[in-house]
Amino acid sequence: MAGLGIGLIGTGFMGKTHALAWGAARAVLGRDLPEVRLEMLCDTPQDRAAEMADQFGFARATGDWRALVTDPAVDVVSITTPNNLHHEMACTALRAGKHVWCEKPMALTLAEAEEMAQAAHEAGAVTMVGYNYIRNPAFLHAKKLIEEGRIGRVVHVRGWVDEDYQADPDLPWTWRARLQDAGLGTLGDLGCHLVSMVVGLAGPIESLVADTQIIHDTRPLPDGSGRGAVENEDTATALLRFANGAHGSISSSRSAWGRKNKLDWEIHGTRGMICFAQERMNELQVYLNEGPKAEQGFRTILSGPEHPPFSAFVPAPGHQLGFGDLKTIEAADLLTAIRDGGQAYPSMQDALVFERVIHAIADSARRGCCRVTL
Amino acid sequence: MAGLGIGLIGTGFMGKTHALAWGAARAVLGRDLPEVRLEMLCDTPQDRAAEMADQFGFARATGDWRALVTDPAVDVVSITTPNNLHHEMACTALRAGKHVWCEKPMALTLAEAEEMAQAAHEAGAVTMVGYNYIRNPAFLHAKKLIEEGRIGRVVHVRGWVDEDYQADPDLPWTWRARLQDAGLGTLGDLGCHLVSMVVGLAGPIESLVADTQIIHDTRPLPDGSGRGAVENEDTATALLRFANGAHGSISSSRSAWGRKNKLDWEIHGTRGMICFAQERMNELQVYLNEGPKAEQGFRTILSGPEHPPFSAFVPAPGHQLGFGDLKTIEAADLLTAIRDGGQAYPSMQDALVFERVIHAIADSARRGCCRVTL
Amino acid sequence: MAGLGIGLIGTGFMGKTHALAWGAARAVLGRDLPEVRLEMLCDTPQDRAAEMADQFGFARATGDWRALVTDPAVDVVSITTPNNLHHEMACTALRAGKHVWCEKPMALTLAEAEEMAQAAHEAGAVTMVGYNYIRNPAFLHAKKLIEEGRIGRVVHVRGWVDEDYQADPDLPWTWRARLQDAGLGTLGDLGCHLVSMVVGLAGPIESLVADTQIIHDTRPLPDGSGRGAVENEDTATALLRFANGAHGSISSSRSAWGRKNKLDWEIHGTRGMICFAQERMNELQVYLNEGPKAEQGFRTILSGPEHPPFSAFVPAPGHQLGFGDLKTIEAADLLTAIRDGGQAYPSMQDALVFERVIHAIADSARRGCCRVTL
Amino acid sequence: MAGLGIGLIGTGFMGKTHALAWGAARAVLGRDLPEVRLEMLCDTPQDRAAEMADQFGFARATGDWRALVTDPAVDVVSITTPNNLHHEMACTALRAGKHVWCEKPMALTLAEAEEMAQAAHEAGAVTMVGYNYIRNPAFLHAKKLIEEGRIGRVVHVRGWVDEDYQADPDLPWTWRARLQDAGLGTLGDLGCHLVSMVVGLAGPIESLVADTQIIHDTRPLPDGSGRGAVENEDTATALLRFANGAHGSISSSRSAWGRKNKLDWEIHGTRGMICFAQERMNELQVYLNEGPKAEQGFRTILSGPEHPPFSAFVPAPGHQLGFGDLKTIEAADLLTAIRDGGQAYPSMQDALVFERVIHAIADSARRGCCRVTL
Repeated sequence: MAGLGIGLIGTGFMGKTHALAWGAARAVLGRDLPEVRLEMLCDTPQDRAAEMADQFGFARATGDWRALVTDPAVDVVSITTPNNLHHEMACTALRAGKHVWCEKPMALTLAEAEEMAQAAHEAGAVTMVGYNYIRNPAFLHAKKLIEEGRIGRVVHVRGWVDEDYQADPDLPWTWRARLQDAGLGTLGDLGCHLVSMVVGLAGPIESLVADTQIIHDTRPLPDGSGRGAVENEDTATALLRFANGAHGSISSSRSAWGRKNKLDWEIHGTRGMICFAQERMNELQVYLNEGPKAEQGFRTILSGPEHPPFSAFVPAPGHQLGFGDLKTIEAADLLTAIRDGGQAYPSMQDALVFERVIHAIADSARRGCCRVTL
Repeated sequence: MAGLGIGLIGTGFMGKTHALAWGAARAVLGRDLPEVRLEMLCDTPQDRAAEMADQFGFARATGDWRALVTDPAVDVVSITTPNNLHHEMACTALRAGKHVWCEKPMALTLAEAEEMAQAAHEAGAVTMVGYNYIRNPAFLHAKKLIEEGRIGRVVHVRGWVDEDYQADPDLPWTWRARLQDAGLGTLGDLGCHLVSMVVGLAGPIESLVADTQIIHDTRPLPDGSGRGAVENEDTATALLRFANGAHGSISSSRSAWGRKNKLDWEIHGTRGMICFAQERMNELQVYLNEGPKAEQGFRTILSGPEHPPFSAFVPAPGHQLGFGDLKTIEAADLLTAIRDGGQAYPSMQDALVFERVIHAIADSARRGCCRVTL
Repeated sequence: MAGLGIGLIGTGFMGKTHALAWGAARAVLGRDLPEVRLEMLCDTPQDRAAEMADQFGFARATGDWRALVTDPAVDVVSITTPNNLHHEMACTALRAGKHVWCEKPMALTLAEAEEMAQAAHEAGAVTMVGYNYIRNPAFLHAKKLIEEGRIGRVVHVRGWVDEDYQADPDLPWTWRARLQDAGLGTLGDLGCHLVSMVVGLAGPIESLVADTQIIHDTRPLPDGSGRGAVENEDTATALLRFANGAHGSISSSRSAWGRKNKLDWEIHGTRGMICFAQERMNELQVYLNEGPKAEQGFRTILSGPEHPPFSAFVPAPGHQLGFGDLKTIEAADLLTAIRDGGQAYPSMQDALVFERVIHAIADSARRGCCRVTL
Repeated sequence: MAGLGIGLIGTGFMGKTHALAWGAARAVLGRDLPEVRLEMLCDTPQDRAAEMADQFGFARATGDWRALVTDPAVDVVSITTPNNLHHEMACTALRAGKHVWCEKPMALTLAEAEEMAQAAHEAGAVTMVGYNYIRNPAFLHAKKLIEEGRIGRVVHVRGWVDEDYQADPDLPWTWRARLQDAGLGTLGDLGCHLVSMVVGLAGPIESLVADTQIIHDTRPLPDGSGRGAVENEDTATALLRFANGAHGSISSSRSAWGRKNKLDWEIHGTRGMICFAQERMNELQVYLNEGPKAEQGFRTILSGPEHPPFSAFVPAPGHQLGFGDLKTIEAADLLTAIRDGGQAYPSMQDALVFERVIHAIADSARRGCCRVTL
């Protein structure tokens, strides 16, 4: 069969974005990429899978993920199911010889994530974890500016990632509030994205001290039988020390009214500063200590053809990329790695670094804000 | 053959966005839409067509657009070629019984555009002209707010559309500067988009008075043999009177340094105001004279699931749509019209209204800023 | 008596700012300025004058402006009364040998304004009209950048000045709506400020074509006896041609919900653009076609010590100036002119240029949007 | 002698703002305030004092601060000298029976600050420490909204205060880098202002964990003889727990390129959020979970007459206050307390609370990021 066979598990928010990304990657990023076949889609019940396979253009549908991950016509498995299923699905797929694209966070516990990375290593597979925000041309341009020394030595870092999906005190209790089912709270949902960005820009975090908070410690049970306990954190904040000597801090809340996709950071250098806000993802704010003082200011750089791979989507600056486009770039990067027999970034091994940080934050907080070395 | 056969002419900026939109529309917007086949792609030379057909996933390629528009397996023709070719291609396709999706502006002259609309009418075809910015959920929400009377009666309107692709005085002369080849200048490239938005929000324009300007009246010829004349306008500005009694103004420049895709407007009502800026296309600024004076202010509404069809792309607010997504919505709207046997908006007949405005602006300016009634 | 004796007529909004400016000018801008004595304050009734003289620190109070403008201890007269009183007060003061600082607009009609300028000329007095927004260090820096050629040749200009004090359809009728009492509408209140800025930056306007609009043509009479006619314009918009060849447009509305002090402009040059928004009066937006394309963007320059006379107020950038500070600079500029035996800018003669523009706009509109040459 | 006699020590940045504030307070805020006499100004050398007394309008000048603080015609002493002088000057003035307005931070060490507060208590004097940013009408409105419960219960707090006056690695060493002369670094200069704001909005801080960093650990000595050690912190960040159960964090840097007066905070509540940025000090960002979801967004509230005491300066919204106006309000609040025989806010006792926080941050960092209880 021509092309790489794609198997996708899950048809929700991220499932759809994977389906679209697989369909668009080569058309957008170019003929150098391998062709793909949308081979099999899995969801439950099976009817749902069949309907969505029709909609997304997959050839076959199944209600049994084990059938999908072992199907001989499937070469790459996309895992977009709830977090507590990632571990088993990924390990099984890897052991069946598949490449794996898994959504973040990898797993509920660090131990499971480590096992996944180990399985990937043993299988010699290409893996990628869905840290889509680091695909943004604006992010890549920031990284390039930093690497070229345009802002000098990085000395301080700050980041925030907030949403408001748990801000309302009256929201009912769900499984998301239970450690056993959901694992970490805001750290797993949001915090790890921020970590992928600040580590990408400022390098590894060496140690941290952190605090977390449960704002709404119980929520009404949906069946009206009382209130259920919220076991995982609503907010988390950490003081960071980076390996390169920079200090910094990150903070996350899932209960921050008005924040829909705040994922902002600022990188302080000895010659300038770069800032970014995800809700305006096609903009970068850059201040350089250059030229006449009277003319210095933060400049708003709009993403454009000068910022690869923007022009693969549109050749005109100011014609914005959207969230889905980030997933398309992600798929293309995975395809490139498969084609070249290399590794994608971030592989499960790479992603472990990010996930260690969020678990270290939870750990530090649990242990009374003690310093945790990574 | 199952599904609608798509024929696409052109593989440049807009050609690629059409190809992607055709591929994504049903996967994004839902199974109620007809299936499509990417049947045939045309560009010159034929090799280019073949390469891009491979990349975009079209079944066949041709260097002969007449072959495409008459091919029996083609049901819908996408026209994304330079503006001076639209007229003949569209008319031929329509007369061959095809539905047509044509990029804007329809043609170099109003007479040609009228002929296209007439051909569409006679063919009974479904047509759509590529006014993609009116597909934006943020725009649709603004329109809904206005229709619901949230800002009261519309009394004043302002709009601007600027880019800087002709700002550099040293850019060489191209065919874009010649009336015969390119038709209008900034009005055709940019102005008509703005018209599609303000008319969509405030209704028909009744009359106008306008002025235009050629900033760089010659440019260096590419062969170094001297300088060529720039024949079409760099800027255009018009005083508007709307049928509903509102006044307003619009202005456009293709020589506005720093503007990459400025396409901004503000609608003044008797109870509030709505503003929009395309470079931040996922935001709407709304001021309502409601609640305590001490708490009034422009609010920044981020596009989200409350603003259809946003959630078809992502169910989470603040996860932005991009330019390509607008074309996907456009394709879906065209597919809906074909499925339902109705007409798409804006059909060639509808789009004539927009294009009459830009020609009226040019006309008023040519005649010494006299009032032109539409 | 030591120092210049100040006589102030009016204790409302602008009266207070004049009083404060007179008190602060030398303390802020330096000992090179002449000392002033707050000699006499006029308002009606006399009790009000006495109270405010106590509050503002004036030595004497009167209810008779003629007594003030002829008082031998008064050297400079500040006129901050309603616009219909400016003409007689200013002419009388000038003929009594006083220097005059008069609020804008100079008068209800151009004829009266011309008479004032003539009286100033004949008296050999120093005059200044209260165009305070052109005192802003940010504005002065923009002007400097333009004069130094940083944005190349100015080719296009746009400006807007909006407030919402007449936006509410239910506001009662006042004298402000009557031509005979108030003269122009939004043009006199707001438009002339904008003209002072764009002419300051782009030079004289040669001709224009304009339209105006009365949004709320009647308003409820305060005594409940019916509705009174609104005779002057709510909005005004003009197409401009400048003497230097640039084109442009300006627009003003006093019925624009949410706009509290919008007074914005953008100057398009062949090498860059400068934009300004009065509601963020300590910021300038500058785009220069310089350096790597990938790093170009509008930069937000915060006012600071590099932008005279900012540092006279605070030596630290980002520590903002406010509205009152603009009046202090204005007073200091007037004092400088008096000290040096020169003329202040804008003198009544200079201000006539601005006021001719607003009357030309009204004139063009009245005559069916015909071209008016200045 | 009529009125309160003012003695001012220092004529630099803050000295000038005090002088202007004393001159303007009653004229702006009203006749209910006591009159003041600008009695005596102190600086060294005496010539400088004499010159500035002339400029600022003080009756007498001296080079001897002890003469000033004991002068019988002086009732209130403004202390605007370098921080290491505050303690002795304030204590001497208080013991001489004067009211004292002292710039922040109170002193180099907490022990000295405590002694000052004790001296104030014993003297029964009215004192005020110069936390000017909490005078801003926008801040006061935020405080009012929070107290009225508009954003529900405060659950999380974040704040930042950055400037770039120590960002340049090549700046020469100064006394500001020496603990003995300058005390704390960014915490004393900037951090305490932020503390005054977040404590004002969210109440007392109960405990914290913090880290600090010296970015540039040596700087070139001005005499070219090598490099001097920087002994105090360039950045400081703390994890906070408030008495009301909220968590939060604050961070400060004096080496943050591009930040001129960043002093920003966000207060997360269970029903909304309020954000503020000092560089846009006339704006408040407020999000309320009210009304249709489709219309929710952060609204930008511009300061205006609805936000006391804004209208004392200008009756029109959007006509901005500046930095100096904050000091005028501060002076008026001090005058009110003197008139009423009450205490001003923040008195030295109140300000101790803020200063304890910055010393606790330094302390936590010094002790390896341990928890410090306040």
